[in-house]
Amino acid sequence: MKAVHSYAAQAADQPLAPYSLDRREPGSNDVEIKILYCGVCHSDIHTARNEWGGTMYPVVPGHEIVGKVSRVGDQVTQFKVGDTVGVGCFVDSCGHCQNCDEDNEQYCENGNSQTYNSLLQDKKTITYGGYSSHIVVTEKFVLRVSDKLPLEKVAPLLCAGITTYSPLKHWNVKKGDKLAVVGLGGLGHMAVKIAASMGAEVTVLSRSKGKEKDAQQLGAHHFELTTDPENMKKLANSFNFIIDTVSAEHDYNEYLSLLKTNGVMVLLGVPPTPADVHAFNLIGGRRSLVGSLVGGIRETQEMLDYCAEHQITSDVEMISIDQINEAYERTLKGDVHYRFVIDMASLN
Amino acid sequence: MKAVHSYAAQAADQPLAPYSLDRREPGSNDVEIKILYCGVCHSDIHTARNEWGGTMYPVVPGHEIVGKVSRVGDQVTQFKVGDTVGVGCFVDSCGHCQNCDEDNEQYCENGNSQTYNSLLQDKKTITYGGYSSHIVVTEKFVLRVSDKLPLEKVAPLLCAGITTYSPLKHWNVKKGDKLAVVGLGGLGHMAVKIAASMGAEVTVLSRSKGKEKDAQQLGAHHFELTTDPENMKKLANSFNFIIDTVSAEHDYNEYLSLLKTNGVMVLLGVPPTPADVHAFNLIGGRRSLVGSLVGGIRETQEMLDYCAEHQITSDVEMISIDQINEAYERTLKGDVHYRFVIDMASLN
Repeated sequence: MKAVHSYAAQAADQPLAPYSLDRREPGSNDVEIKILYCGVCHSDIHTARNEWGGTMYPVVPGHEIVGKVSRVGDQVTQFKVGDTVGVGCFVDSCGHCQNCDEDNEQYCENGNSQTYNSLLQDKKTITYGGYSSHIVVTEKFVLRVSDKLPLEKVAPLLCAGITTYSPLKHWNVKKGDKLAVVGLGGLGHMAVKIAASMGAEVTVLSRSKGKEKDAQQLGAHHFELTTDPENMKKLANSFNFIIDTVSAEHDYNEYLSLLKTNGVMVLLGVPPTPADVHAFNLIGGRRSLVGSLVGGIRETQEMLDYCAEHQITSDVEMISIDQINEAYERTLKGDVHYRFVIDMASLN
Repeated sequence: MKAVHSYAAQAADQPLAPYSLDRREPGSNDVEIKILYCGVCHSDIHTARNEWGGTMYPVVPGHEIVGKVSRVGDQVTQFKVGDTVGVGCFVDSCGHCQNCDEDNEQYCENGNSQTYNSLLQDKKTITYGGYSSHIVVTEKFVLRVSDKLPLEKVAPLLCAGITTYSPLKHWNVKKGDKLAVVGLGGLGHMAVKIAASMGAEVTVLSRSKGKEKDAQQLGAHHFELTTDPENMKKLANSFNFIIDTVSAEHDYNEYLSLLKTNGVMVLLGVPPTPADVHAFNLIGGRRSLVGSLVGGIRETQEMLDYCAEHQITSDVEMISIDQINEAYERTLKGDVHYRFVIDMASLN
C-alpha cells in the first residue's frame, strides 16, 4: 500500500478536507496514474452528501480524471510510464455478462465497480475517486488521451462527454436532424457541442433569456424560451431529438409534444421524484422517451478520439483543491461555465 | 345521396338505435362497400358516450369493416364489384405532408379523416362508420382482403390487428426475442398471436390466474402473475419487449423494471390520467417507453396479407346489431373473447 494525498468527506454534513488515502500497489494488470486534473460532477456532491443513500465514509469523489501513467504492472501491454490517460465513471466490471460482452460495461448485469463509493469485483474493496494525487486502475478500464487538447478541458469528457456522446451515437443523430437541448449545465453544454459537430441543427430550450448568448457561443443554432406558452405552441412537432439533462423536477409532457413523429427524448438527469407521462403524447406521434447512462469503455475511447479529431473540449473553470467546498455550492446554484476542474498540483 | 340502414347514438347517454344514414353516391375515385361484418372496438364506446369529448351526434361507430365492393367510380382501377375488401380506422388524409409521403397516414400532419366522428378532407363533411349496411371510401383507403380466412374473424384485424402488428414490425421484433403482453383483450390477444408468429417467445403478464389457460390457447409460451412481488422480482430484466395494451390506470414502472438493457415498452392504451415514470428505470438500462398508433394504409395491407399467409385471425363472438348495447356493457367488463363482431346481415 502507498499513502497518497486526497480530499475526502467524512460524513454527509462535513465539508471535504485533506485525507491520507491508501492506494494498492499496482498488480500485474494495473496502471498507476498520477492525476493532473479531475472534473467536479454533480454526482460527486450527491454522493459526498449521501443524497442517494449508501455513501461509505470517508468518500473520495471524482470520476473525470486525466493524468500521466506513473507505474505499470508486468502484464500491462497497452500503456507505458508517461502516457497521457483518463479514467471515467467505472474502473472494473464482471467481464462475462451479455452487456460486458457487448462493450456495455455501464450496464454490467453483475454490477460494475464505479470509480468511487463502490466495491471492486472482489465485492469487498471500496473504491476511491479522483480527488487524489494517484489512482490505480486495471488496464482495461484506462483510456488513452490525446495530448493535442488542453488536458484540463478534456477531464470532463470522461463523464459529461461520454454521457452525451453515447445517446447521440446510439440513436444515430445525424446531419440535418433537429435536436433540442434542455438544461445548459455540464451535460447540456457538451450535448450542444457534440450534437452540432455531428451536423444536427441544435436548439437550446431554456426558461431563462440570459442563456441565449451562452447557447450561441457554444454553437447552438437557435435559442427558444420555454416559459412563453405561445412559443411552445409554435415549437410543437419540431424536433427529431430532445436531450434532457435536467435533474430537477420538470414536466416531460411539454417537451414530448415538441417532438416530431418518431422523435426521441433522451433523459440523462434523474429528478428526485417520478414525472407524469401522458400516454397519448407518445402514441400520437410514435414518440420515444428513453434513458441513457454514460457509455462503455470502447465507446468512451471512441468519444475521446472523436473529440480530439473535432477539437471538442469542455468549457471549464479551474480551481485548486481547497476551493472544492465553495465549488460545490456554486455548482448547486448553477453558477459555473460549465464544469469546475481541480488542478491536482494544488494538492501538494 | 342514398339512405342506408345503420345504428347510431343520438346522445352520450342514449343507447345505439336504428338510424337512416345518407351516404354519398360514389365519386370517380370512390368504392362503395356492402358491409358484411364490423368489429366492436373500445374506441366505439368512448366515442358513442363522448368520453373523449368532441362527439358529433348522431354518431355511427365502427372501424373494423369487412365487406364486398358493390359499386365503383369510373376512375377506380384497383377494385371491381364483388371484391372482398376492408376499411380500418381512417378513410382519407392530406396526402402531401411528410408522414403521408412516408405511408404513415395515421400521423398525417394536417389531420387525417377518421372512419367515424371525423371530417373528410373538405373539413366539413362528417364521417360515419361501419355499423351500417354500406360505406363509400376513396379507393386509396380501401384494403384488399383475402377470401381464404373467415371474414368475420378478419374484421378486427383492421384496428386491433394493425395496432399490434405495426409496433412489432417498427421495433423489429424477431425470432428469439422475449416479449411480454400486458392486458389480454382485443389488442392483447392479437399481440400474442402476431408476436408468436414472428418467432418471439411470448409471455402473458396478468393480475388474474384465470387468464393462464386463455393465454396458452392463444399461443403464449409463458404466463406470469404480476400480483406476486416475489414473482415480479424474479422477472426483472427479462424481456426485450413489453406490449402494454391496458387503458386503465396502472404503474408503468413495475413493467419497465422487467425490461432487459435496451428493452422497449410499447404503449397502445391511453389511461385516463398520466402515469408516473421514474427516470432511472429508463436510464439504468437504456430502456425505451414508446407509443404507437394503428398503422398506415400500406402497412395495413401488408398486415392483412401477412395474416392471410400465417392464418392469423381474431377470436370473435358474433352478435346481431340489436345486441350492440349489451355488447358494449360486456366489453366494458372485459367479458368478451376477444372481440365482438356484428353480423351486418342482421341490420335488414
